[in-house]
Amino acid sequence: MSKDNVMTRKLQWGMIGGGPGAFIGEVHRKAARMDGQIELVAGAFDINPDKSKQMGALQYIDPKRAYGSYREMIEKESALPAGERVDFVSICVPNNFHFPIAKAFLEAGFHVVCEKPMTMDVKEAKQLCAVVKKTGKVFALTHNYTGYPMVKLARDLVKKGHLGKLLKINVEYPQGWLLKALEKTGNQQASWRTDPKQAGAAGAIGDIGTHAENLAEYITGLQMVEICADLTSFVPGRKLDDDASVLVHWEKGVKGTLLCSQVSIGEENALKIRVYGEKAMLEWRQEYPNDLVVNYNDKPAELWRRGNPYIGAISPAAVRGTRLPGGHPEAFIEAFGNIYANATETMRCKIAGKKPSPLALDYPDVYSGLRGMQFIEAVVKSGKAGAKWVKMEK
Amino acid sequence: MSKDNVMTRKLQWGMIGGGPGAFIGEVHRKAARMDGQIELVAGAFDINPDKSKQMGALQYIDPKRAYGSYREMIEKESALPAGERVDFVSICVPNNFHFPIAKAFLEAGFHVVCEKPMTMDVKEAKQLCAVVKKTGKVFALTHNYTGYPMVKLARDLVKKGHLGKLLKINVEYPQGWLLKALEKTGNQQASWRTDPKQAGAAGAIGDIGTHAENLAEYITGLQMVEICADLTSFVPGRKLDDDASVLVHWEKGVKGTLLCSQVSIGEENALKIRVYGEKAMLEWRQEYPNDLVVNYNDKPAELWRRGNPYIGAISPAAVRGTRLPGGHPEAFIEAFGNIYANATETMRCKIAGKKPSPLALDYPDVYSGLRGMQFIEAVVKSGKAGAKWVKMEK
Amino acid sequence: MSKDNVMTRKLQWGMIGGGPGAFIGEVHRKAARMDGQIELVAGAFDINPDKSKQMGALQYIDPKRAYGSYREMIEKESALPAGERVDFVSICVPNNFHFPIAKAFLEAGFHVVCEKPMTMDVKEAKQLCAVVKKTGKVFALTHNYTGYPMVKLARDLVKKGHLGKLLKINVEYPQGWLLKALEKTGNQQASWRTDPKQAGAAGAIGDIGTHAENLAEYITGLQMVEICADLTSFVPGRKLDDDASVLVHWEKGVKGTLLCSQVSIGEENALKIRVYGEKAMLEWRQEYPNDLVVNYNDKPAELWRRGNPYIGAISPAAVRGTRLPGGHPEAFIEAFGNIYANATETMRCKIAGKKPSPLALDYPDVYSGLRGMQFIEAVVKSGKAGAKWVKMEK
Amino acid sequence: MSKDNVMTRKLQWGMIGGGPGAFIGEVHRKAARMDGQIELVAGAFDINPDKSKQMGALQYIDPKRAYGSYREMIEKESALPAGERVDFVSICVPNNFHFPIAKAFLEAGFHVVCEKPMTMDVKEAKQLCAVVKKTGKVFALTHNYTGYPMVKLARDLVKKGHLGKLLKINVEYPQGWLLKALEKTGNQQASWRTDPKQAGAAGAIGDIGTHAENLAEYITGLQMVEICADLTSFVPGRKLDDDASVLVHWEKGVKGTLLCSQVSIGEENALKIRVYGEKAMLEWRQEYPNDLVVNYNDKPAELWRRGNPYIGAISPAAVRGTRLPGGHPEAFIEAFGNIYANATETMRCKIAGKKPSPLALDYPDVYSGLRGMQFIEAVVKSGKAGAKWVKMEK
Repeated sequence: MSKDNVMTRKLQWGMIGGGPGAFIGEVHRKAARMDGQIELVAGAFDINPDKSKQMGALQYIDPKRAYGSYREMIEKESALPAGERVDFVSICVPNNFHFPIAKAFLEAGFHVVCEKPMTMDVKEAKQLCAVVKKTGKVFALTHNYTGYPMVKLARDLVKKGHLGKLLKINVEYPQGWLLKALEKTGNQQASWRTDPKQAGAAGAIGDIGTHAENLAEYITGLQMVEICADLTSFVPGRKLDDDASVLVHWEKGVKGTLLCSQVSIGEENALKIRVYGEKAMLEWRQEYPNDLVVNYNDKPAELWRRGNPYIGAISPAAVRGTRLPGGHPEAFIEAFGNIYANATETMRCKIAGKKPSPLALDYPDVYSGLRGMQFIEAVVKSGKAGAKWVKMEK
Repeated sequence: MSKDNVMTRKLQWGMIGGGPGAFIGEVHRKAARMDGQIELVAGAFDINPDKSKQMGALQYIDPKRAYGSYREMIEKESALPAGERVDFVSICVPNNFHFPIAKAFLEAGFHVVCEKPMTMDVKEAKQLCAVVKKTGKVFALTHNYTGYPMVKLARDLVKKGHLGKLLKINVEYPQGWLLKALEKTGNQQASWRTDPKQAGAAGAIGDIGTHAENLAEYITGLQMVEICADLTSFVPGRKLDDDASVLVHWEKGVKGTLLCSQVSIGEENALKIRVYGEKAMLEWRQEYPNDLVVNYNDKPAELWRRGNPYIGAISPAAVRGTRLPGGHPEAFIEAFGNIYANATETMRCKIAGKKPSPLALDYPDVYSGLRGMQFIEAVVKSGKAGAKWVKMEK
Repeated sequence: MSKDNVMTRKLQWGMIGGGPGAFIGEVHRKAARMDGQIELVAGAFDINPDKSKQMGALQYIDPKRAYGSYREMIEKESALPAGERVDFVSICVPNNFHFPIAKAFLEAGFHVVCEKPMTMDVKEAKQLCAVVKKTGKVFALTHNYTGYPMVKLARDLVKKGHLGKLLKINVEYPQGWLLKALEKTGNQQASWRTDPKQAGAAGAIGDIGTHAENLAEYITGLQMVEICADLTSFVPGRKLDDDASVLVHWEKGVKGTLLCSQVSIGEENALKIRVYGEKAMLEWRQEYPNDLVVNYNDKPAELWRRGNPYIGAISPAAVRGTRLPGGHPEAFIEAFGNIYANATETMRCKIAGKKPSPLALDYPDVYSGLRGMQFIEAVVKSGKAGAKWVKMEK
Repeated sequence: MSKDNVMTRKLQWGMIGGGPGAFIGEVHRKAARMDGQIELVAGAFDINPDKSKQMGALQYIDPKRAYGSYREMIEKESALPAGERVDFVSICVPNNFHFPIAKAFLEAGFHVVCEKPMTMDVKEAKQLCAVVKKTGKVFALTHNYTGYPMVKLARDLVKKGHLGKLLKINVEYPQGWLLKALEKTGNQQASWRTDPKQAGAAGAIGDIGTHAENLAEYITGLQMVEICADLTSFVPGRKLDDDASVLVHWEKGVKGTLLCSQVSIGEENALKIRVYGEKAMLEWRQEYPNDLVVNYNDKPAELWRRGNPYIGAISPAAVRGTRLPGGHPEAFIEAFGNIYANATETMRCKIAGKKPSPLALDYPDVYSGLRGMQFIEAVVKSGKAGAKWVKMEK
């Protein structure tokens, strides 16, 4: 066999999870396929081997490579030659399986893309950091909202001082879909998310609160110092929180709030952030992601719109993450695809022995995953104590 | 002199405050004049008698009735016959003067409209409640935002069960105008609001936080049970809070947040409330006051717009507070005028010995002012303790 | 009697029309009263003398000055001394009475505010121009939408070259309230507006199309050169147009469209204008009147908001027409009040023998009324010809 | 070779056009790849064979199948066995090449996806209709805006009578990018679009006006009867129209307007449609495509949002075209992908000898392309005549 030249072929990709009835697995597939750089060739799509085969057929992959378990997949894929075996895998399973599967693939020499929250607890998260460090493999966490071009613009506006010294951050992420006890109706998405054994110590805070935390940190470059969390399970019998109101102190004296909820009726996926500085504020809403409002005290508010030439001077990262000109809206899948685009370009570079560009390295890594777990831990601790202040672990 | 028939004349009105350079006094005048039921005939417009005269001339009132002090005004007006002397006064001065002036006019037999926050502390507030009760006079507090028709509709939607059992309330009131230390530049509005001697124990919380608290209570009918307040003075040297993030527990297990700020750059007067129930949520924004969003999990979101026939079936109070048909927007002054319209109709009834209709009694009273003071006291106590939970006094 | 000093008293005002059941008359009253400069003292409020008396009582005016006809009013008021008799009257009656009443009051020495469209045809309009010119009295037409501060800002942005050379204007004014044949149900507003004898040659075009025409001319300073109008009466049996789509050629090669409709279901009063230049475009919507969007090809869109300091440098007229700071919304009545404020300040100056400032002269005059009638005439001619191009009379 | 089973493999796809520097070709690729049903295996990507090779390499296709011309491609691909040779091609080249290339592939037995406007004139369009009919192959035109789920919902709301009898349609499509004479700067997109030899008889009308025409017809099911078009070339020296204002009479007495422009500064891609009936109106904006406003005279306006369960009862087509739940926005590429999804499912059925479902047949066909050409012809004829009414060919 000829030597593998990774630059002249699509990256070979496998999935763990994303079987029949799954939601986010198919999102990964659409996002990854869009740019024509990645080819799905293998998978352990479901814990049930028949269902894994079934999904493999729907994906038109070689039936031999629709595996019955991730262990089998590691064994068989490892036996294939480079360029043929999967270069990386994506892990789209309930939270309790993230850590063992990620660890196993990393240690077997595969790059990994993993769903959030990263692990079940801080301890696992730290172990995973060590594994990533030791193996030198790419590990990308799908905090997909940081893939939006206007989020990258927001980050670069902050970084370049457009907002001045920061004072406040208000981030919120309300949803309404868990207002009813769907976990009692057999709804697959609801069931594992509300089960401590599969989801971990947190419900809404883990599922979407971590996105909010990550988004705030990504845009402002600030980490949380201490939090005071009012956690609630509004739905009777629900074991994990479905609503949280959190007071937050960030570094550098920045203050604010983080709200998340899965019982806020009428809300779909309304992640929103406002950052206030001494010179300007910015506001971004995930449901209208092509717009970024920048507002001042002494001149008209500005609406920055994705795809416009004036963005380039501020944010090469936003431009890189843009596929269409202004007025041709982009959305969720495209942003998700940007996480894949950067992570896989970094993988290509690693495989080819090249140094990835700083722009390619712009994806959520294992340390952002660790901070997410530290956030969860602090919030749960605060919540259990009746909304007392808790320091975040550094 | 013939017997006074209050139903065949305009109400005779006097002002305390609202002199040259004041802001809210002129708003009171525009709001009160709009409907043609009230005639400004006297005033102690400024602590400086010359300035009081000056404003009196601008208002085309009899120079003899532009008084040098509120005490002189009480004395001289009391000497005039009914129908000629002022029926009521409006108090538009810094907070520290609210209590003594209101008490004096009430005890002298005049009805009173008063700016918020009502007094300097809970003690004064309770005394004022007693004075109002004893004198039987009308006392209206200008929590003007409850004058908006769509706020009344919101209240009635809640009251009639349209939202189902309530779960959450998020109310916020960000402004940006005090981001700079305007109190050091001689700005009159900034100076007294940031001075504990004139403003009381709270800054932003007193000036606008009480509006947010009152709005939430007005719409939901719920009172706060306990709060945890993160208070900040972002501007160096400022003695009172200019920013607050507050966790709130309302009655009946309802939870939520109250945010207010006067250092949020780019924000003008962005009072906004969201109320989530089990059947629907509602959202109202003061800056776009003719719209009320009602949102569900299982059908399209609704935009209720002021002035439409379909509002009448739900909210006679909204219809009563509406002057123009749909699409002919109403705004701040009209809402302010609704406080005057209801309070003064109640006064007319009292003077004429009639019973006011329930719709006329729909104005903020002395007890809502007391609760505002209790809110301030609890927030300040919590803030000073480093954002600990504090029970609200019942 | 002492000599009248108009600067030390309220302007004395009378109304023709605005009786029980009228809509716009009460709007005039609220708008005129708001600023405390005008006192309603007389009126011929209704063609039925009893109803006129009834409205006079509701307005708390001297019963002797609630007249049974405008002729009686002219006679009796003329007999009163200056400072006591009305300084001006407002004419709020169906279109067919505008001309004779306006002419009579002007010739009797009174200033006049008049509803639009100004007359029944171009011939009357020209006669009225001559009367105004001859008498030297103030004549203001209530094209009230030009009273909005952000419309004044728009005009000044255009005037100061902010948009560059203009290319296009799209103005539209859709309403939906006449989708049903309300004129057959006894609805007073619908009846006279759809009756050629009272409304003139045009329906929607006269009632609201003229507002759109006036707004476009006010903002851009351009007059129409020729039009091609597709007129329709969608409601069976309706004698006048209830919908119009008009192609327009303005001066200086500017092109565009004017749409108006009273049968566009779901529309309330959605007057909107977009003006495109070579450097920028602007967009203003009457239903959200505190906002003005200015948009570019090469920088972020701007949202200019009423009441902000940055407006002053561009538009002293907008500042003058502003009563409240940013975020404290103003709306329809306030804009209407600005027509009154400027027209009556001009009257005061005339009475006092002073020269009014250019800012005071910023109200719609008799010539804008003439152009409105020329517009109606051209549109109707074009419509009757099956949407052929028709030159506007100069 | 085993018999081809099209149901167990990806559709094999080739492109004509979409070489280096092209815009829409890459959009086709992303849209087609997203769902994992289509594999790009061949192409004549550029009229320059070297550039065609270059793009082939970027697409990771077999170098032998990156052809130097579409004729070579037809010859070589035809020689491959079914299942290996391309099943269909997409034509993404300037308008003047659409007809000959489409005709050649159809006649060689390939299915075709083609960019719009379909041909250079009505004559070619009719010939193409005949070719499609004769060959029985699938021909899909990328009027991609009809791929949006909320556009499908809009169509189904109209079809099911939710709006009642229709009265009016206002559709507009303003852009601003051609305000400068980019065709003189070497801009590839601008150059061919403004060149009559490559673009045909129309500029903006052909490029985007046809989208507006198609969208209106798709949603309402109505065809245009006659039009009156005011065509302009605002940019000096430009040979084709860059702006159009068109009065339109549709079937069944429906009236309205169609506006399109490429010189409207500040506009990006602001396709918008409003349809007014007797019971309701609807409004959809391409730049915020997940929302559909439905408005009434007698109840609150509704905001229908993509991905919500309540849509299913009205529009199975919208549900079918939806990939993500509510609040996870979809946009341009996803809508474009829906054209591919339906057209290629129809192809699969044809290849497999099955009957496609009605939902699969929901893509723009050759007859919608013909009507687009008839629209262009009528508009240009009207425009040249100075905006006279012209009947549309049936």
